[in-house]
Amino acid sequence: MLVSLRLKAPVVLPCDPACSVLRDAVVDIDADGRIVHCGPSEDAPELPAGAQLRELTGILVPGLVNTHAHTPMMPLRGLGGDLPLMRWLTEAIWPSEAKMIDRDSYDGMLLGSVEMLRAGVTTSVEMFFHGEHMAQAVLDTGGRVVLTPGILSAPGLERLGTWQQLAEHTTRWIDTDGLRFGPGDRIELGYGPHSAYTLPPEAIAEISRMARDRGALMHIHVAETLAEDAKQREEHGSVPRLLEKIGALGGRVLAAHSVHLSDSDIEIFQRYDIAVAHCPNSNAKLASGTARLLDLLGGNVRVGLGTDGPASNDDLDVWDEVRLAALLARLDRGDAAALTAPRALLLATRDGAAAVGRDDIGALEPGRWADVVHVDVDSPAFPRGTDAPDVQLLSNLVWSAAASQVTDVWVAGQHVIGDREPTRVDRAKAQAEVRRIAERIAS
Amino acid sequence: MLVSLRLKAPVVLPCDPACSVLRDAVVDIDADGRIVHCGPSEDAPELPAGAQLRELTGILVPGLVNTHAHTPMMPLRGLGGDLPLMRWLTEAIWPSEAKMIDRDSYDGMLLGSVEMLRAGVTTSVEMFFHGEHMAQAVLDTGGRVVLTPGILSAPGLERLGTWQQLAEHTTRWIDTDGLRFGPGDRIELGYGPHSAYTLPPEAIAEISRMARDRGALMHIHVAETLAEDAKQREEHGSVPRLLEKIGALGGRVLAAHSVHLSDSDIEIFQRYDIAVAHCPNSNAKLASGTARLLDLLGGNVRVGLGTDGPASNDDLDVWDEVRLAALLARLDRGDAAALTAPRALLLATRDGAAAVGRDDIGALEPGRWADVVHVDVDSPAFPRGTDAPDVQLLSNLVWSAAASQVTDVWVAGQHVIGDREPTRVDRAKAQAEVRRIAERIAS
Repeated sequence: MLVSLRLKAPVVLPCDPACSVLRDAVVDIDADGRIVHCGPSEDAPELPAGAQLRELTGILVPGLVNTHAHTPMMPLRGLGGDLPLMRWLTEAIWPSEAKMIDRDSYDGMLLGSVEMLRAGVTTSVEMFFHGEHMAQAVLDTGGRVVLTPGILSAPGLERLGTWQQLAEHTTRWIDTDGLRFGPGDRIELGYGPHSAYTLPPEAIAEISRMARDRGALMHIHVAETLAEDAKQREEHGSVPRLLEKIGALGGRVLAAHSVHLSDSDIEIFQRYDIAVAHCPNSNAKLASGTARLLDLLGGNVRVGLGTDGPASNDDLDVWDEVRLAALLARLDRGDAAALTAPRALLLATRDGAAAVGRDDIGALEPGRWADVVHVDVDSPAFPRGTDAPDVQLLSNLVWSAAASQVTDVWVAGQHVIGDREPTRVDRAKAQAEVRRIAERIAS
Repeated sequence: MLVSLRLKAPVVLPCDPACSVLRDAVVDIDADGRIVHCGPSEDAPELPAGAQLRELTGILVPGLVNTHAHTPMMPLRGLGGDLPLMRWLTEAIWPSEAKMIDRDSYDGMLLGSVEMLRAGVTTSVEMFFHGEHMAQAVLDTGGRVVLTPGILSAPGLERLGTWQQLAEHTTRWIDTDGLRFGPGDRIELGYGPHSAYTLPPEAIAEISRMARDRGALMHIHVAETLAEDAKQREEHGSVPRLLEKIGALGGRVLAAHSVHLSDSDIEIFQRYDIAVAHCPNSNAKLASGTARLLDLLGGNVRVGLGTDGPASNDDLDVWDEVRLAALLARLDRGDAAALTAPRALLLATRDGAAAVGRDDIGALEPGRWADVVHVDVDSPAFPRGTDAPDVQLLSNLVWSAAASQVTDVWVAGQHVIGDREPTRVDRAKAQAEVRRIAERIAS
């Protein structure tokens, strides 16, 4: 394939398993938006005539993967701020969601997608309603999404339809448009049965069958809090045991949160290769607990990082999850090396992609989509700029560089953030639309 | 006193003990830089002729107080990123500090002071070397500092002098310039005996006497890790017991970290009214542990928040400490209301000031210095801007608003940050100086 765009920078982090640091390197991208080469400049092939060269001054990293989000909740940020999960859902969130209409999912997703892209988060795994509107928003901003429209029975949300209707809707959509579509395969569809406490077991079993038949991801909340899953634990031992018993674990499964897992639950995750979306900020803020990250990693369970919705975190900044995941793991073990800066960075990139079952994003390697983020080092966060030795540079990036150091972002080779601003949508207008929704819900 | 400057905003958070939210309110400031009035606009006195009115569109809060920092370490950020405390000190930090010269304390403090002011942190309690250079840097940026020059015996740092010489130096300085000086009392001096593991007990006892004789703050690391204080615990039961035994606890004492405290240690803190600088990010990153924040607060121990040095956190953003303090407290108790957003905000403002023994900063109240921060709400962090109800607004501020939402800062009524940039020093030049130091240390 012919190179159509070359990104060149003093430092490139391909996010290979060793978290290598390449100095003076390039990322070559073809016209379709796939990476064809990533390596030191001196080894790079000659740039073909007509190809564009973009020379950058900082660090190139793969776009971060947010493995669990409910982004259209942007207008609800800060509601029920100090409530635990079930009161937060029943008193603050569900009554507000009941006032949201189809088009709100477009506007919330649009602004949230911009917020994520500006932070270098190029992919999110989304569970919310009115998926077509969400897909359109992501197509408009130029982001990437794994879209698992939410399926649940919750008070006030009956107007969305029964779980059967919701599941059938997703099935029809997949059967019409395919599992992946859009330029650069930027939309992937999957199933989003909400949880074992908002759906009967037969619903989850049926949805799981639909997903497996189509090779689609099943994205479900598992063992987020002790209280919500009490009934399942009493009857079945645990939610993973319930899911195993009803035959819901054969396919691609992403278990969000997974805070309260016993050793035998982890064995179930291993047996069925279930992946975890670890959401440390949300789980701490709602006082749900902390997932056993190091035990999961030690057991070769696939783990990515998730922000959860912007109303329970309260942001969409995966860099924050990287830091908190590392801090909590270190406290857990009393060992400052329990989760190093480079290992934590991989969680948000390569591992996040793997958790979603994707080997075409999350790293800067030939054949993967060119989802690339440029981090500016002209900041006190980088006392020696890109000249620092590898360990210090990775520390500066992970511990000190905020999302605000991201200046440019490409998704499938398309330049979607330039000089910190979205290139395709009007950020002020997107924010004004979300404000209008927030005022309407409050009125 | 005549009002010379009035700040007017849709929301003012005076940080009174109830964390009130004032709507459409003003902060009136006299020519000396003290607050003379804070309240709703409708109750405000008529503005005298010649007084300046500044109308803002967001939220006014008191400047945040960073109760524990070593800010001149800016050039060392990211060194020894994944090491535990003692290896981090002996392998990465002390050898690098040994290469720092007097003037480096000016340059590091200058850039760090700018970083803090831009984040809305107006006061920091500092322990480092070459205090005169640090004081000059803070006078130059327009910030405020409680400066306790470091006193210790550490390998490679012998050139700084013996502990006696270091302590005498501080004493001479206080006896010459007084405890507080500079416009708006922007410099306060105190004593900084480093710790019980870097000083003999007789040194701490002697320094404590010097501090008490002068009404000065004694700022000391206490029980940061289990390993470093093992000798003291073996011989005396604990570091607080050692300090009590040698008579070092009679005066104003700020105990940084205080991670490993028993119930009887907390009783010692209560008995002598010892304050704690809680540093959750540093303590987690170095895997030292987590201080018993809720037990300390429940026991009426004064607690503020600290970032620790920029090389062990790795930033100087007190908002991050607010969030992590709340997250860890909630996880500790399994209760999402264990530390609410407003309570956490008070830790960084009013309580931080009280922890340092200051009732003239940390709140927007008549008689206090006008250290005021404006937080812009034109961001997805505030879905309803300043129109959100109090609970949501406080949640948006604490959980979602980053330091980057700070646009303007006043210290003792002087405008030191305008439109996100320092008004008195050249930020690019300050950053270049720190880079030069970092390169020299690495060479």
